[in-house]
Amino acid sequence: MSTLKTVAISLGDINGVGIHIALLAHKEVSKLCQPLYCISQSLLEQASALLNIPIPDDFYTVHVEGDFTINPGVVDKNSGAFSFASFHKGIELCEKNLASALLTLPIHKEAWMSAGLEHKGHTDYLRKHFDKKAIMMLGCEKMYVALFTEHLPLKDVASKITSGALSEFLIDFHKETKASKVAVLGLNPHAGDNGVLGNEELEIIKAINTVNQEIGEDIFEGPLVPDVAFTPRVRENYRYYVAMYHDQGLAPLKALYFDEGINVSLNLPIVRTSVDHGTAFDIAYKSAPLTLSYINALKEAITLSQR
Amino acid sequence: MSTLKTVAISLGDINGVGIHIALLAHKEVSKLCQPLYCISQSLLEQASALLNIPIPDDFYTVHVEGDFTINPGVVDKNSGAFSFASFHKGIELCEKNLASALLTLPIHKEAWMSAGLEHKGHTDYLRKHFDKKAIMMLGCEKMYVALFTEHLPLKDVASKITSGALSEFLIDFHKETKASKVAVLGLNPHAGDNGVLGNEELEIIKAINTVNQEIGEDIFEGPLVPDVAFTPRVRENYRYYVAMYHDQGLAPLKALYFDEGINVSLNLPIVRTSVDHGTAFDIAYKSAPLTLSYINALKEAITLSQR
Repeated sequence: MSTLKTVAISLGDINGVGIHIALLAHKEVSKLCQPLYCISQSLLEQASALLNIPIPDDFYTVHVEGDFTINPGVVDKNSGAFSFASFHKGIELCEKNLASALLTLPIHKEAWMSAGLEHKGHTDYLRKHFDKKAIMMLGCEKMYVALFTEHLPLKDVASKITSGALSEFLIDFHKETKASKVAVLGLNPHAGDNGVLGNEELEIIKAINTVNQEIGEDIFEGPLVPDVAFTPRVRENYRYYVAMYHDQGLAPLKALYFDEGINVSLNLPIVRTSVDHGTAFDIAYKSAPLTLSYINALKEAITLSQR
Repeated sequence: MSTLKTVAISLGDINGVGIHIALLAHKEVSKLCQPLYCISQSLLEQASALLNIPIPDDFYTVHVEGDFTINPGVVDKNSGAFSFASFHKGIELCEKNLASALLTLPIHKEAWMSAGLEHKGHTDYLRKHFDKKAIMMLGCEKMYVALFTEHLPLKDVASKITSGALSEFLIDFHKETKASKVAVLGLNPHAGDNGVLGNEELEIIKAINTVNQEIGEDIFEGPLVPDVAFTPRVRENYRYYVAMYHDQGLAPLKALYFDEGINVSLNLPIVRTSVDHGTAFDIAYKSAPLTLSYINALKEAITLSQR
């Protein structure tokens, strides 16, 4: 009797590198969990032939509608629709308790659009589906960054920094991670330099104080000066960061830990992790993709599902 | 007869680590240039005694008014006034052709304020003094980042991104660096994702095209996706980056190359470089500061003055 956790795996855009990664890593993955792949037999066989990788005997699939020709590296509405269906099947498997976690391979946003799907991405859809304020956290064992705002034009970021919304975010973040120490970044250069370069830091300070008081412990620290927060000596002190906006957190993270990074959705009824790269259409069905981010995402999915 | 270039060195805030760095590195510095330190004999003797480092015989100083008690790690108006006077003496030495370049050690902005000085920092003063649009560039041999906007609240950045102002900046940048390839960052997450996440990238594209046409060569590339631009594989392609705002460029830079980084002022009548760290009041006159940034700043000053 295996005691391994079952993890649902959505294949992402079948014209991209997802299926290649899944086939390459299957043996290693099977030692860590019982994978359940969300894909049709027709597409699996096509991909296997194109990649010249045989389908392993223990490659268990849950059927997802999809019967069309794979076009490596091409934005395609069929491929877009399939990647959504595969993702959705993965969610259902978790909801029905047939899987303990969902690991998603990358979709292509334009393919979703051409298939008439308006969601901005996996996290956006999960938020709507569960009607919950999912928290997007990216990183790796050495460093995780949670994003307070995500896919927002830069000019709209400052007005979103309110102590109320941030407090709620920090409370949710703490519930999910149980982190004992978290760095919260400022918004402005030099964290505002005492108001000379912006005053949104006052809201951030208020949120930090409110939440620490509510928790009864000084978990959240900051606001940290954004361009100093990721220097080696500061990183020694923190494993978790909360960034005020997308590039503030992700540019330093990806500069430091690109290949190993993963994406985690917190504050949802299901456990969901993802690789932190795209469909890599430029190398799809040509050269072997790296599987490090995928394996790391799987490990984190297992860890989170054991909590 | 020495053929070494003369470099004026301003000591920065005397309550900080500047004088310690200067004394520690003097021997090494003297092999690379003929340094001329801008400091009073009284302060030099005090610092030497406090640090227990004898004044080297060949430690040539140009007198700068300053006769008060050093208070390690303390914001002080006398120290603020002296640090400005030392800086200004360095500028004068370059203007009078008594030095080929100016290397500045860190001042403390609050000390400047308490001395009634309203300039935001070295670069800000240089801009006013010479009435020139100085360009602030930070980095090290492996990677330089020039800032299109600097000490500006984040909410005010987007409206500054106009093709006219950016074109002028890029032309000046190219004149000064003669770089053959330069990455220009987008402003928004995913560089705006074709307008879905902001449209300032249209202005950036216009500026890049205008300037490349004017130069007659495709020097400037972009707009690059900000959180991908600093990943290892992209960094292989670029040594020079133009960032749209302070933390966009400096957070990844300092995450990667903190201790070795320097600050260069381009587009001025004099050559000026600086260390890329602050006064480090917490360790001033206690533990030995690193001199790597200082030595790198000196080397770059010499290189630039030889152009």
